[in-house]
Amino acid sequence: MTTIDSTPDTTAAELDVVLQRAADAAEAFGAAPPTERARQLRTVADALDAARDEVVPLAMAETHLSRARLDGELARTTFQLRLFSHVVAEGEYLRATVDGADTGFALGPKPDLRCVRWPLGPVLVFAASNFPLAFSVPGGDTASALAAGCPVLVKAHPGHPQLSRRLGEIITEALRDADAPEGAFAVVFGFETGTAALRDERITAAAFTGSSRAGRVLFDLAQSRPTPIPFFGELGSLNPVFVTPGAVRARGTEIAEGFVASYTGHAGQLCTKPGLLLLPADHGLDAALVQRSAAVGPHRMLNDRLHAGYSQRREEVTVVPGVRVLAEGDDTAPTLLATDAPTLLAHPDTLCEEVFGPLSLVVTYSGKDEAFQVAEALHGNLTATLHAEDDEPEFATGLLKRLRPKAGRLLFNGWPTGVAVSPAMQHGGPYPATTDSRHTSVGTAAIDRFLRPVTFQNVPQQLLPAAVRDDNPWDIPQTRHS
Amino acid sequence: MTTIDSTPDTTAAELDVVLQRAADAAEAFGAAPPTERARQLRTVADALDAARDEVVPLAMAETHLSRARLDGELARTTFQLRLFSHVVAEGEYLRATVDGADTGFALGPKPDLRCVRWPLGPVLVFAASNFPLAFSVPGGDTASALAAGCPVLVKAHPGHPQLSRRLGEIITEALRDADAPEGAFAVVFGFETGTAALRDERITAAAFTGSSRAGRVLFDLAQSRPTPIPFFGELGSLNPVFVTPGAVRARGTEIAEGFVASYTGHAGQLCTKPGLLLLPADHGLDAALVQRSAAVGPHRMLNDRLHAGYSQRREEVTVVPGVRVLAEGDDTAPTLLATDAPTLLAHPDTLCEEVFGPLSLVVTYSGKDEAFQVAEALHGNLTATLHAEDDEPEFATGLLKRLRPKAGRLLFNGWPTGVAVSPAMQHGGPYPATTDSRHTSVGTAAIDRFLRPVTFQNVPQQLLPAAVRDDNPWDIPQTRHS
Repeated sequence: MTTIDSTPDTTAAELDVVLQRAADAAEAFGAAPPTERARQLRTVADALDAARDEVVPLAMAETHLSRARLDGELARTTFQLRLFSHVVAEGEYLRATVDGADTGFALGPKPDLRCVRWPLGPVLVFAASNFPLAFSVPGGDTASALAAGCPVLVKAHPGHPQLSRRLGEIITEALRDADAPEGAFAVVFGFETGTAALRDERITAAAFTGSSRAGRVLFDLAQSRPTPIPFFGELGSLNPVFVTPGAVRARGTEIAEGFVASYTGHAGQLCTKPGLLLLPADHGLDAALVQRSAAVGPHRMLNDRLHAGYSQRREEVTVVPGVRVLAEGDDTAPTLLATDAPTLLAHPDTLCEEVFGPLSLVVTYSGKDEAFQVAEALHGNLTATLHAEDDEPEFATGLLKRLRPKAGRLLFNGWPTGVAVSPAMQHGGPYPATTDSRHTSVGTAAIDRFLRPVTFQNVPQQLLPAAVRDDNPWDIPQTRHS
Repeated sequence: MTTIDSTPDTTAAELDVVLQRAADAAEAFGAAPPTERARQLRTVADALDAARDEVVPLAMAETHLSRARLDGELARTTFQLRLFSHVVAEGEYLRATVDGADTGFALGPKPDLRCVRWPLGPVLVFAASNFPLAFSVPGGDTASALAAGCPVLVKAHPGHPQLSRRLGEIITEALRDADAPEGAFAVVFGFETGTAALRDERITAAAFTGSSRAGRVLFDLAQSRPTPIPFFGELGSLNPVFVTPGAVRARGTEIAEGFVASYTGHAGQLCTKPGLLLLPADHGLDAALVQRSAAVGPHRMLNDRLHAGYSQRREEVTVVPGVRVLAEGDDTAPTLLATDAPTLLAHPDTLCEEVFGPLSLVVTYSGKDEAFQVAEALHGNLTATLHAEDDEPEFATGLLKRLRPKAGRLLFNGWPTGVAVSPAMQHGGPYPATTDSRHTSVGTAAIDRFLRPVTFQNVPQQLLPAAVRDDNPWDIPQTRHS
């Protein structure tokens, strides 16, 4: 039997040491040439890959996730670190801009201005439970903050403490091997530790993936500091899927199949799980949906806390008058509920909030206008999906127009789960999907969150940072004006 | 005699109408082709230029600013609108990105992903008093939000109500002439109106220029909404100027002259006014500083409220033990005070906070380490300035390194007042200079604040927004991957 020890909380004294080391490391870590930091990111990726046989079993023991899933997740995690190392080495992300002096400028003589983006300083990352690798200690927030040149403190998720501790050791050691300053990375433990770190003035930004409730508490804490800081929270998302009558006619069974696979995959513990399926009232897919849902094998949830939260929300949603059970799940099997649009619109607080786990809600609409009404009533989402056929342009256009203000990513004839790492990916959406819809936590643009522009005016060459010097010693793209 | 009527506050019912019009206009205004919005911005600029002979006298009567200053400010304002119209027409600001489908992608088949930035929606702008044109109704926040495609509600500053009302009429009419939807622009009046609008869910972002106290209250309001929104506040900045012993020896009198011109210009009512001058203890410039300050002609402040606030802060700073008066100003003449670094460091709450008006503080340091200590003790600033000579590289490097984390713009041998409109300008800095150091309120990058990325996944060409279609009907730059 595998024993999962509980890892003791980081003490206040220990946290102070870690924070001071991070603050002390910020200048040197942030000022390193892009090629050096790129090498550090690659070294971390290599070390994680090399530790696969140790890390994956640890993760399996603490999360109930399969080896195949965790192998894939590790591959994604190290791919991401290497992708970021390419972006850093290339140097475009610094947006080095040189606007030379111009005595004849329209508004009067203009000085020599040179702008480059600089890391904010130590970043606090609240790890998620559902991706113990890709959104936890070595995940996207960590990778993007390190890539930006910010020391990182990860507040470990209590769902996988041993894994978090070990990953922390591996990353710290790899960074040390690659000559990063001591203090560039650390993992801390405990709820109180997390909030204390978030309040500490040495922390200059924070990122979070988790529940709306916890995320909002931390967001409020970050904003109410004497010095407020950027807080990039990914909270809750319903990820509605709208299906037009034509799409049901053309491929109803296929849609039922795809939907069930998407909402039940990983026991529904994905931020992009489709939580609402909008179907025309006469869809006739109940049997197919029930059959597919019932055929899904059991899957334990990640941990007891999540499971308790799921059970409670499942109960809340199920007892709403007008909600009926299509597929009655249990602790490990998926639950599929059904209702109509008027019921949904009458109970937005209960039915339009995410249920984290293997549950989804089929909602029937009586016509185009009712579907539009539902789209307009939704809060912010990471994704919104439309299944439609070519013969319904007005319905499709009308829905896309109404869903666009509600989501960061709009999908057509597909499923929202699965988030590609791409320069064109937006994984972020209007509140409560994220606390700042202008940013993504997946893809290389995630680096931008942790940088701020600094302009140098008439500063002599020898005192300028390398990124904006005329001799361009880092050999990075410099945008030149005048 | 010019009579300044007080403009009545916008009523709650009027505000509701204006907000609903803005919300209704958001879709059409935001979806307009870049060339159309560019034309709208140019039409606004033309209308403002055409109204110069009406607008400038109105501004003079309400602000005590000179015709020359206001003529220049109007030129800057319309230049800015035209510059933004160029940026919009060019279309790069949309960051249209196309990442085609890739079945052979390392992490599994990748869908077709296309990302474009979309306007957030109605933006609330809190106008400033010190630039009744360039940072008020037609100012940088308005110009950048309109350029982004966001309807704008300006909460007028009470310091120039008639001017604000008239500017609102001119802009609204110009936008109407240029076929912008009704509701794309409005001016509202009253403190309660401003906070009510900020709380309203139809407002999706806000910008503010003003005092730290008011700015923080509004920031807190924006963040504590059920749906928090981006709030770009420019609050207070000390704009320290450090002078090395070598610079004093080489050009002490010139520095004294430049400093006095900079801190007294426009009665010190500039966000980049140098509020601290750090000099070596044996600088010997007291006489020159006093003489120059005394020679500055009287200048009434913008309004009675600012003047009352100034008098109070002036008193607070003057009575700190260890602060002595170099030049004793009065209601209209500049005040120059002096102290030493230990006194400054002992009274940070009083001495390291902005005094908005014609006052500055000369602080002497006993050596390099004490100068470094002061730099390290400072809060965030819009600017920090260094005057140094070539023979002091260690002092210069050490100061720049310590000032860089404290400011958005670093100047060498110059003065911080005067902010060039440039793609390399950063007008924004660590808190409390601004509430989000990652953004600028001057320069074309200001547009970025009001846009969020939206990704379209596998959406057919005919349903895609023009910006990311393969036929590129807007003829804008599209970054293409794979």
